[in-house]
Amino acid sequence: MSERPKIRLFVDHPLEEGERVALSRDQANYLFNVMRLREGAEVALFNGADGEWRAEVAEAGKRGGVLACVAATVAQANPPDLWLLFAPIKKARTDFIVEKAVEMGVSRIVPVQTEFTNSERIRQDRLQAHAVEAAEQCGAVSVPEVTELQPLAKVLDGWDARKLVFADEGAAGQSPSLSDVFAEAPPPAAILIGPEGGFSEVERTRLRGMEQVIPVPLGPRILRADTAAVAALTLWQAAAGDWG
Amino acid sequence: MSERPKIRLFVDHPLEEGERVALSRDQANYLFNVMRLREGAEVALFNGADGEWRAEVAEAGKRGGVLACVAATVAQANPPDLWLLFAPIKKARTDFIVEKAVEMGVSRIVPVQTEFTNSERIRQDRLQAHAVEAAEQCGAVSVPEVTELQPLAKVLDGWDARKLVFADEGAAGQSPSLSDVFAEAPPPAAILIGPEGGFSEVERTRLRGMEQVIPVPLGPRILRADTAAVAALTLWQAAAGDWG
Repeated sequence: MSERPKIRLFVDHPLEEGERVALSRDQANYLFNVMRLREGAEVALFNGADGEWRAEVAEAGKRGGVLACVAATVAQANPPDLWLLFAPIKKARTDFIVEKAVEMGVSRIVPVQTEFTNSERIRQDRLQAHAVEAAEQCGAVSVPEVTELQPLAKVLDGWDARKLVFADEGAAGQSPSLSDVFAEAPPPAAILIGPEGGFSEVERTRLRGMEQVIPVPLGPRILRADTAAVAALTLWQAAAGDWG
Repeated sequence: MSERPKIRLFVDHPLEEGERVALSRDQANYLFNVMRLREGAEVALFNGADGEWRAEVAEAGKRGGVLACVAATVAQANPPDLWLLFAPIKKARTDFIVEKAVEMGVSRIVPVQTEFTNSERIRQDRLQAHAVEAAEQCGAVSVPEVTELQPLAKVLDGWDARKLVFADEGAAGQSPSLSDVFAEAPPPAAILIGPEGGFSEVERTRLRGMEQVIPVPLGPRILRADTAAVAALTLWQAAAGDWG
């Protein structure tokens, strides 16, 4: 691990030996003004397809620059095929859920509008940028897609065979262990976390009637949505994902 | 659940039928100025020993007030005997770890200073107040104690037979499942989360040499300390705590 440069950048560019990667103005500003890197300094690059590469600063300018790929350092590894569906809440906690989903390892982040969701819009581009930053910081070599906000009912209308684990405060305690319950949802799977006010009775009834849905209770205390997201992702990763 | 008043207050006062509880100035300000409650309004009270009580505003004043206990609504239930040891980080993330520990259910929160811990002091009183707020919000009827910051080495010097699960980035993947590993640490137990820079080699060697210690890896990505705390607490609660 110590050989990986600490500064990591996601780039939308093929990575292979000798490849020269032009930097955006923001990236150049970050590397050369904020982090004060000079020519020859090392940076790690990933693009979600070619693993992680060690690159060197070949040209450093005020408004741009070029990095040259030197060597592959980490093989491409994608998180399991797991989606996180969540109802956006206050901005800081929504950002937090996106950050945590990336760290925990999901393939797609799906904001959904439920009957009790307060926010009627999100800034998809801002959340996607937040996911990129989280991937740069946590050492992931891929970035999950963040989709536009969609009504939960519409998402469920088109639902295929994918298992959907649904954090349901009202679910009765399970006789099998939580670990066994999550093990019943191998990839492709999804986890659905409700808003602070929970789901409506209409939503709960519909979800509980779907054969793909597995309702799970998450302990005896009331969890905030962001806590519930990390808890459910943890149980899934340990039982059915890549933490095994 | 709908019968429990939404406003919950932790009070340092015995709770039984007819008991009259005097409010602090801050509590009176919150109830009567911020939330605009009037005489006769209902509030839930808990003190960590007598369960949760429905109380009514008996006197509402500018600088104080009195609540009268009406009826017990929730039996006292304490979280399992689980401590969370963590190295304080930036203020917002330290607050977050305290909040999450309360939601997840721990009996004690122990800030420890490690070799790579940046912060040399904490405001214990502020963190304890933060734990009270988290308990008021998450429906818990007890509040974990937050201890003063102590050096990790000193905490380990006096360690008794309590199992200590240690989130160790360098731990090899386990052949038994993570669920089985956490099941080996029934109460009384503790979880130790390191600082962003990880533990020093001296610390890791010492921890790994203690027979009470169980090192666990938390997946293939690098988790922030606050994410690791929620993940480890989740796995413990599901395997050995009160989520079973």
